[in-house]
Amino acid sequence: MPERSIRVLRLGQRYVRDDRTLTHLCLVSRALGAEAIYLDDVEKDVLSTVADVNENWGGSFEVIIGRPWKGVLAEAKAEGRSVIHLTMYGLPLQEVITELRSIQKLLVVVGGPKVPGQVYHSADFNVSVTSQPHSEIAALAITLHEVQGGEELKRSFGKSKLRIVPSARGKRVVQN
Amino acid sequence: MPERSIRVLRLGQRYVRDDRTLTHLCLVSRALGAEAIYLDDVEKDVLSTVADVNENWGGSFEVIIGRPWKGVLAEAKAEGRSVIHLTMYGLPLQEVITELRSIQKLLVVVGGPKVPGQVYHSADFNVSVTSQPHSEIAALAITLHEVQGGEELKRSFGKSKLRIVPSARGKRVVQN
Repeated sequence: MPERSIRVLRLGQRYVRDDRTLTHLCLVSRALGAEAIYLDDVEKDVLSTVADVNENWGGSFEVIIGRPWKGVLAEAKAEGRSVIHLTMYGLPLQEVITELRSIQKLLVVVGGPKVPGQVYHSADFNVSVTSQPHSEIAALAITLHEVQGGEELKRSFGKSKLRIVPSARGKRVVQN
Repeated sequence: MPERSIRVLRLGQRYVRDDRTLTHLCLVSRALGAEAIYLDDVEKDVLSTVADVNENWGGSFEVIIGRPWKGVLAEAKAEGRSVIHLTMYGLPLQEVITELRSIQKLLVVVGGPKVPGQVYHSADFNVSVTSQPHSEIAALAITLHEVQGGEELKRSFGKSKLRIVPSARGKRVVQN
């Protein structure tokens, strides 16, 4: 089976930029097996945090800035990538998960407070992780986890400067 | 089988209080089936956000402020509640999940950047959701989801002012 390809798009204009949330979204996307995230705009420290994490912990996760969302959606469609829009109004994840697991190329769209109606219409799936208000970070995490059936938890990040040796107590970090 | 009881403790002194992250942690705990979260200290708007969500969307999720963490841990032990500390240094979630699923009363401890060593020693389980740096919000979400085997996604919040009717496109909200 070919490897799954997952990309993430963060949508939604914000009046106050929330770089902490964006950093969480980037690092969750990376840790849980996505290959890239598209953001409108960020402070440089989000980019440098992700660059540091790649350098220390491995992998080649990409943050792609400033590409208009309509173009990202159009490109996804053109390359046969299914668009999964996460929204509390969508169909419950547990009802569509079997279908989602069969898809090899996905673009997961994470909304901010104001997502244009067009996104609901152009998405292949509008999906909710509970129909309760909570967190786009949590919704993204559970979706990435479920789509990959937990395999992402075992993922290796290849060559890295640092590596954790899991332990029942305390902290063990190996420098490579 | 009696209903599982899950409480959450957020630990770790912060020099700059990060209320956005705390709001995410509260709402994720609530949406994914925990009954309460303990926080050191918050701005009033975190409390009022959670109160509004309870009022509109149901349930009786509690935010408990200012109780010293040692007391929260001691109380958990005294009432036979297992302490699950989430840390990137811990044992992989997928290796301990079967055991965690058999536990009826849990306190899930979510660390900030500086967690005292004593927490690692007094926890019944130190658990990692990947050994990569990412987000305590995501780690909490995946842990709550896995411990409850996905049952939390179907949870009802009882009587509420608002209720979403899941739909493939668009937004359907019912006012009760």
